[in-house]
Amino acid sequence: MKIAVLPGDGIGPEIVNEAVKVLKVLDLPFQLDEAKVGGAAFDAHGHPLPEHTLNLAMASDAVLFGSVGDWKYDKLERHLRPEQSILGLRKNMGLFANFRPAICYPQLTHASSLKPELVAGLDILIIRELTGDIYFGQPRGRREAPDGEFKGAPEAFDTMRYSKPEIERIAHVAFQAARKRNKRVTSVDKANVLETFQFWKDVVTEVHAQYPDIELDHMYVDNAAMQLVKAPKRFDVVVTGNMFGDILSDEASMLTGSIGMLPSASLNAKGQGLYEPSHGSAPDIAGKGVANPLATILSAAMMLRFSLNQEEAAARIERAVQAVLEQGLRTPDIHSEGTQKVGTVEMGEAVVAAL
Amino acid sequence: MKIAVLPGDGIGPEIVNEAVKVLKVLDLPFQLDEAKVGGAAFDAHGHPLPEHTLNLAMASDAVLFGSVGDWKYDKLERHLRPEQSILGLRKNMGLFANFRPAICYPQLTHASSLKPELVAGLDILIIRELTGDIYFGQPRGRREAPDGEFKGAPEAFDTMRYSKPEIERIAHVAFQAARKRNKRVTSVDKANVLETFQFWKDVVTEVHAQYPDIELDHMYVDNAAMQLVKAPKRFDVVVTGNMFGDILSDEASMLTGSIGMLPSASLNAKGQGLYEPSHGSAPDIAGKGVANPLATILSAAMMLRFSLNQEEAAARIERAVQAVLEQGLRTPDIHSEGTQKVGTVEMGEAVVAAL
Ligand SMILES: CC(C)[C@H](C(=O)O)[C@@H](O)C(=O)O
Ligand SMILES: CC(C)[C@H](C(=O)O)[C@@H](O)C(=O)O
Repeated sequence: MKIAVLPGDGIGPEIVNEAVKVLKVLDLPFQLDEAKVGGAAFDAHGHPLPEHTLNLAMASDAVLFGSVGDWKYDKLERHLRPEQSILGLRKNMGLFANFRPAICYPQLTHASSLKPELVAGLDILIIRELTGDIYFGQPRGRREAPDGEFKGAPEAFDTMRYSKPEIERIAHVAFQAARKRNKRVTSVDKANVLETFQFWKDVVTEVHAQYPDIELDHMYVDNAAMQLVKAPKRFDVVVTGNMFGDILSDEASMLTGSIGMLPSASLNAKGQGLYEPSHGSAPDIAGKGVANPLATILSAAMMLRFSLNQEEAAARIERAVQAVLEQGLRTPDIHSEGTQKVGTVEMGEAVVAAL
Repeated sequence: MKIAVLPGDGIGPEIVNEAVKVLKVLDLPFQLDEAKVGGAAFDAHGHPLPEHTLNLAMASDAVLFGSVGDWKYDKLERHLRPEQSILGLRKNMGLFANFRPAICYPQLTHASSLKPELVAGLDILIIRELTGDIYFGQPRGRREAPDGEFKGAPEAFDTMRYSKPEIERIAHVAFQAARKRNKRVTSVDKANVLETFQFWKDVVTEVHAQYPDIELDHMYVDNAAMQLVKAPKRFDVVVTGNMFGDILSDEASMLTGSIGMLPSASLNAKGQGLYEPSHGSAPDIAGKGVANPLATILSAAMMLRFSLNQEEAAARIERAVQAVLEQGLRTPDIHSEGTQKVGTVEMGEAVVAAL
């Protein structure tokens, strides 16, 4: 089982380090190969996704990814900025299906911005299409406006597009995921305005005919952004495009109040996957030993389950994380009165001990 | 002062009725002309925005709009659906600047999904560009995919675009609005992925040079969706494009827990405006006499202020609304223990009485 380990920038190296400790203690035949990515790769090799990093990732069964980005790269040209590495990995590896659970842990309900009764027991799975939409659509660029009120003025443009097979495959992923859960899928679109998302709605409806056991509803993206705040527990599986999924999955994870606990998986058709915490690189706390490694450790558990076929080891890690929460250990992001504040390393080692 | 009154569908007629009562009691020289719009216009004239309705709106100083939409029109072809009327009014009247306040009334703080300390005193102004972006960008449609992994497959596409003058004028609106408030503007973009929004960021930064007294920061849309949940009070004025503004303004208004209280204004360069409540047509409660008319009444106040130059009358209406809240009157959407539940008409008449 070949795992590419890409720690990246900011808190990435610290949190990935703890996840690697957890993997090592499982005593499974992993081959772990580390490479630089993001700003760290730019500093060392002049590019955020150097060829050897991409090749390593492509040749692995799974990628364990930390996080990328730091203010100090803000002035670089776009194609050299850290975020381009994650976009390049998604596109080159064909990681079209992004799983973003938004779960409210019973011990952490109080950390939410929302009233406890609205989020207690929350368990949503957002499935975001990750290789299409306006993220990668061509043409795009700058030009003189070819028509309209400001014809001739400088303008910038992008293309939103989805083909039928792209929508079909993510719809299948969503319906199949719902089958293992509460059998409800909400497809989020903007069919009242966008051609792309009228088509999305039509194709999702068509695919749904093959899943009579799953309940499907359709919701406009603006309404979805509201319902997530008003009554998040009404959702089970949410499936949507790349752009709307970017916004809604972040909104949903922030609802839980403990984004430091939330893993994510991005899969391709062959089962290869990239696993990363839902949170970012948090350059403000990098190097201070206070970042929460649990989202990354739980991402490693998802990796064992989805890409490495090690369900038992995945469940063991998840139980160990539950155990450290029960013990009352908390990194500063989820700390509250009556619990014990610990740092990144202590938290990682507590998970190792619980295993 | 010519006002076009377009009640529309669902609860639209009921709530507009109360706003009209309020306007009439002011004893100002208004000429009120009513016309059908949305599904109601489709039923009567076969089109959601008949020519005479559009002409009436264009010839008025201001439009007082209720709401459009009902499930029963879902099966119509897109260009005949009720929502097309509001898009048509925006585009034809050039209503490029949408003002969406998200205010948490002290009497209603408890109605929010968020913990009271996070929303007490909340007062955000979202300024959404309303006539550009992917809402109106051409080309759009269906075709065979011209390239990519699924070349030749059926696909749908849309075009996101912004020209420099479009961004400049909405940026000026935002900076000028901030001058009358707390002098802070957050420009929301997705410059790390989209050409259109890298350009947006560049142009907003350029315009900012003319407003040294205003603080500007830039935020990615996914982060903005999170920060609204985590710490909404950090925002003063938020300016963004049409698509992101659609999502974020709805998310922000739902944070207050009292979307039934929130007005909106959409203005063009000549000061003509369309005024409508932030909430939708709520077909489930239409005709039951329980809808909250206050958002529409407050929209009429915005109309007096922005398009009719009647600041004093606007402020009088706002004070009257405060007074009925103080009296403890509440429609069902904002009702809580210890307050008095009233219907649409009672609420409207209470505002009239308070005037
Ligand atoms: C870094 C950025 C390009 C990326 C995205 O927009 O997809 C991030 O926000 C995410 O969600 O993983
Ligand atoms: C009805 C719809 C076309 C409209 C929009 O997307 O702009 C609505 O959601 C709004 O925000 O006014």
